[in-house]
Amino acid sequence: MTNYIEVKAEILAIGDELLYGQINDTNSHWISQELDKIGVRVIHRSTVGDNSESMLAAFEAAEKRADIVLMTGGLGPTNDDLTKPLLAKYFDCEIELVPEALEAVKTFFEKRGRELTELNRLQAHLPTKCTYVPNVVGTAPGMWFEENNTLWMSMPGVPHEMKKLMKDFVIPKIKEKFELPVIYHKVIKTVGIGESWLADLIKDWEKNLPQNIKLAYLPSLGQVKLRLTAFGNDYDELQANVETQIDLVKPLIEKYIYGYNLESLEESIGRLLKQKNKKVALAESCTGGYISHLITSIPGSSKYFQGALVPYHNEFKNSLLNVDKTVLKNHGAVSEQTITLMAENIREQFNADYGLASSGIAGPEGGWAEKPVGTVWIACAMDGRTISKKLQLTQDRMLNIQLTAVATLNLLRLSILEETE
Amino acid sequence: MTNYIEVKAEILAIGDELLYGQINDTNSHWISQELDKIGVRVIHRSTVGDNSESMLAAFEAAEKRADIVLMTGGLGPTNDDLTKPLLAKYFDCEIELVPEALEAVKTFFEKRGRELTELNRLQAHLPTKCTYVPNVVGTAPGMWFEENNTLWMSMPGVPHEMKKLMKDFVIPKIKEKFELPVIYHKVIKTVGIGESWLADLIKDWEKNLPQNIKLAYLPSLGQVKLRLTAFGNDYDELQANVETQIDLVKPLIEKYIYGYNLESLEESIGRLLKQKNKKVALAESCTGGYISHLITSIPGSSKYFQGALVPYHNEFKNSLLNVDKTVLKNHGAVSEQTITLMAENIREQFNADYGLASSGIAGPEGGWAEKPVGTVWIACAMDGRTISKKLQLTQDRMLNIQLTAVATLNLLRLSILEETE
Repeated sequence: MTNYIEVKAEILAIGDELLYGQINDTNSHWISQELDKIGVRVIHRSTVGDNSESMLAAFEAAEKRADIVLMTGGLGPTNDDLTKPLLAKYFDCEIELVPEALEAVKTFFEKRGRELTELNRLQAHLPTKCTYVPNVVGTAPGMWFEENNTLWMSMPGVPHEMKKLMKDFVIPKIKEKFELPVIYHKVIKTVGIGESWLADLIKDWEKNLPQNIKLAYLPSLGQVKLRLTAFGNDYDELQANVETQIDLVKPLIEKYIYGYNLESLEESIGRLLKQKNKKVALAESCTGGYISHLITSIPGSSKYFQGALVPYHNEFKNSLLNVDKTVLKNHGAVSEQTITLMAENIREQFNADYGLASSGIAGPEGGWAEKPVGTVWIACAMDGRTISKKLQLTQDRMLNIQLTAVATLNLLRLSILEETE
Repeated sequence: MTNYIEVKAEILAIGDELLYGQINDTNSHWISQELDKIGVRVIHRSTVGDNSESMLAAFEAAEKRADIVLMTGGLGPTNDDLTKPLLAKYFDCEIELVPEALEAVKTFFEKRGRELTELNRLQAHLPTKCTYVPNVVGTAPGMWFEENNTLWMSMPGVPHEMKKLMKDFVIPKIKEKFELPVIYHKVIKTVGIGESWLADLIKDWEKNLPQNIKLAYLPSLGQVKLRLTAFGNDYDELQANVETQIDLVKPLIEKYIYGYNLESLEESIGRLLKQKNKKVALAESCTGGYISHLITSIPGSSKYFQGALVPYHNEFKNSLLNVDKTVLKNHGAVSEQTITLMAENIREQFNADYGLASSGIAGPEGGWAEKPVGTVWIACAMDGRTISKKLQLTQDRMLNIQLTAVATLNLLRLSILEETE
């Protein structure tokens, strides 16, 4: 087995709004995952309010327990934010203007054509013992301390600012400071099968996994991730071990695997479409633009995404998408006949290789006996044929929108693979 | 000033899977909200692993800080679950079979036609100093202690089991044990102004807030929430005090306020459109369907949302949205001239009162000197006029999409208010 020195980290979230339940602390969970990936062990997480006594006590307790203390929040320009003055007090140093930080804040506002306020100017004043860490997506800088034989990082509570500071500065810095154990992760991403069915298909393989490889099931909406984690001393060896196991499990679940590691379903579809040099267009009714949003959230999607139409009423399904009035009248908007025409017509309008369509009753209202809330039709039109599928989903509107999006993207994925095999 | 005795609570989440980021601790946030509602003040939250030393330390620290300690997790039948033995050790008592608990577990399994295992039988053994609290939806019972002048409750980590125990037992028990203060919260939701500018506009008002009312700034993408929290004995009095303060601050920031408490920007826009009986349609280029998704995520949005077009390429801005080819050629897709036509034409196509449009360079690629990544034009077309606006945003694609959506929805909000004043 392995013989590394364990590096211990503590995560400290600061803010009354967290303790009052006004804001959900998603930062601590995300940081836990990032540290786990690089083999740093999170041994404690705390949430404290905007209160000097409890914050100072938390600094002290964390210092006793951990080699690294990562804190988020309490850095805004307003008066209820105490992190900076208390860190200065805790490390017994002054707070002074950092010209470089002032420049950064100025530029941040100039870019946005806005006036710098006195409060913003104050954000460029930092404890003299800290290393100034630029925050390029916000106004509150990061602060890095190496004090009392512990590494400290203070970050804003705004998730995308914190994440940028973690990726650009904290993670590299930690890797530079410590001899971390070698950990190799690989995630198999699956879609179109539930956790328990997946577990059933691979149970024998799972039983025979080597001791230094751990398997975790990470289910999310309509998808299940399989995370393989190998611990050891030699990266290449671990990688080889994991790849061997993946070669063994692949044939058991091939058609459900759409990608690996960080690749999202919409990214994998983008990759496929680019490979095959094909283009897609969408007619979204019940999903109201959500599928197009997922596809266009991927950089470079303009190469394969032609566009979309959201005809939210029958009148527009006819006038803008040329769905025959009598079909709409006789079968309704949520029917195989309508969804087929929607997919075929949008494909033609946008001169695409694949035309996707969704139409259903998202809820919470609008259902009836024959077509209850959660009834959804999806379709994919391609050269020469159109595949349509009926889904029976939940009572929850948002859940229905999300599950329909995953099912529709998966229908496209399978269509591309079948058609181009 | 108020003269209640503040009741302090600490929430303790137990489990390695939380610290490693394998499971997201949603329990602590939910418990925070429930305690906040009844005027119990959460002063600290901790997450510790399945480890005797850190768990005992956490009990001790919590006892020093809080009147009530609510813990979740570490109660499963497996060996890595330490909560029960450690509570027995901490309170210096034995663990004995509780016949009533055994009956409950037996019934639980009979109902499901399953065999009772030895491990399940052990779940009916509890510390002698605790009050057995039946868990009717699971196998791990709740444990209530009144020790060391503190109230303790241990609950399973499974969210729906924890929630049932909280609602049926813990909340009523706390209300019975304490004279609780009354807490009144109201959140003012603003859009279109940054935290520091907002703080600047209301700084005098903030200085003069009564001592029993606390203000917190809660910023999120393009929005800032102002949370007023009043502590006292009389709900109606607190509500009146808070409303008085809101009446004072309103005139200072009127145009930025879109709603209160839990209302989202897209909900408030839906409310406005329904009130005025107006309808909206969108032409989304750089936002790729995201704004339509936000609008249609609200139940009942079909009453005011007509539909949307996502013409992701100039060719379709012309063929499907009738934007003049020469305008596209001479001014480009990201220009005042193009965005104006997009908004006006989509309004006409969908026979809407308001036509919204977005067109920009979301990035990370596609920018150039004259129009760098983050350059976005938005517009709102209405009866007789069209308002357009240029935004200079970030390098981050997702952020640009989200910030454009907020700005566009806010442009619609202001247009509705101006037009119908």
